[in-house]
Amino acid sequence: MVRYDEGRSRGEVDDVLAAEEPLEIRVEGRPLAVVMRTPGHDRELAAGFLLSEGVIKTAKDIFDITSCIEQGATGTGNAVDVALTHPDSFDFEKLTRHVFTSSSCGICSKASVDAVLKRRKPLHDEARVKASVLLALPQRLARKQDTFKSTGGLHACAIFDAAGKLLAAREDVGRHNALDKLLGWALLEKIAPLHGHIALLSGRASFEMMQKAHAGGIPIVAAISAPSSLAVEFARESGQTLVGFLRGRSMNAYAGAERITR
Amino acid sequence: MVRYDEGRSRGEVDDVLAAEEPLEIRVEGRPLAVVMRTPGHDRELAAGFLLSEGVIKTAKDIFDITSCIEQGATGTGNAVDVALTHPDSFDFEKLTRHVFTSSSCGICSKASVDAVLKRRKPLHDEARVKASVLLALPQRLARKQDTFKSTGGLHACAIFDAAGKLLAAREDVGRHNALDKLLGWALLEKIAPLHGHIALLSGRASFEMMQKAHAGGIPIVAAISAPSSLAVEFARESGQTLVGFLRGRSMNAYAGAERITR
Repeated sequence: MVRYDEGRSRGEVDDVLAAEEPLEIRVEGRPLAVVMRTPGHDRELAAGFLLSEGVIKTAKDIFDITSCIEQGATGTGNAVDVALTHPDSFDFEKLTRHVFTSSSCGICSKASVDAVLKRRKPLHDEARVKASVLLALPQRLARKQDTFKSTGGLHACAIFDAAGKLLAAREDVGRHNALDKLLGWALLEKIAPLHGHIALLSGRASFEMMQKAHAGGIPIVAAISAPSSLAVEFARESGQTLVGFLRGRSMNAYAGAERITR
Repeated sequence: MVRYDEGRSRGEVDDVLAAEEPLEIRVEGRPLAVVMRTPGHDRELAAGFLLSEGVIKTAKDIFDITSCIEQGATGTGNAVDVALTHPDSFDFEKLTRHVFTSSSCGICSKASVDAVLKRRKPLHDEARVKASVLLALPQRLARKQDTFKSTGGLHACAIFDAAGKLLAAREDVGRHNALDKLLGWALLEKIAPLHGHIALLSGRASFEMMQKAHAGGIPIVAAISAPSSLAVEFARESGQTLVGFLRGRSMNAYAGAERITR
């Protein structure tokens, strides 16, 4: 790339870029979706994506996950195939229709929230977390975020326990992918659903991010940046705690503040 | 929301949130997609979305765009119907399959880039822009960004001419939507394709954002933050100029630096 300072070219220099490549997610050998993601943790991403989309409900629904490379295929390894434990109960046509409209299930906010909570019940999670623990999370994530420092181009998500211990962190060009990778990690590690845990998002909290966390059973979501109106509306109905603007020594609780203790 | 400073609750206060609501985009009365967007400029969003997805190619392909409210329907107005000039040439089944996999068209980077450029040719645009003009754009956008100041929750995009004049800016919880709204604005104002123009993105430049700008005929894309590897790869093949880290008095040109003059 060519660097410019004060309007003048400083000549060509090399730069490290955040990697973005397509991943084809297949179920029983059939292409279901293509996501643009940062390579790595692809099996986790596929598992988490299927959980978010409601294709699977628990780790037991997954029989096996293989990448193309493992199958001996040529190409770049940008495809992952998920074999299901009960392939017979799997309606591919219904699934593609479902995924196609997955970003919402209605044409008003309330219908969107209700549609998700009809499929998966609101959380009743007794977890409590100290305000001081929440305030310390961003620094703990920052210490783990290596690629971001060099490229500035990745979103990060992390899972903490209620005592503030970082259990896993993932980075991706897509913030949905970073969270899906964590959901998949929990599934493959057999620790899903993540009751009593905290998800930290490096960016904003949207409806879809809250919906994914809910699919993973996560009661507390904390975002460095702002939440959207529908994220807040969803959190209040889903029984989730939603914290935004978690920066420096302050934060805002938009839903479920009763989980935050002194 | 409940505000916390230094780990202590400061009690409940009101906050302004970035609005996020579902919009159902219909073509000839049939639901095609649901996007989560910030309400406003919905007809532009629908037009730009259809251009990005290759459903329409020019403004002439649109016969009319109506919102549900205009049709006298009950509900929240979160649906827009696009009537096509040539509805007979419209294959709904093919379309839903297409949109479903629109985020990519292959399982390697090169195939993804090639698939897009097979559908729409690379740009041959003689536009030139002064480095000093590019460096001044973020401030001009910031002056327009009202909602961001109050909510911190919106992405912004803007279209400038090559002299640096701001022609239109849009904000949205989704950055794809912000750019689609601008493409739709250009279509409805009959100034598409945007040859010789500059798109400024408040965030990162991904493959999809470059693809959308390309669909709108925009030769120069400048992002405040980082580009992804595939965004750069695409720009080099599509004939676009891609500038990243446009901040303060410096910037990086990752592709098409020949368009930037002193």
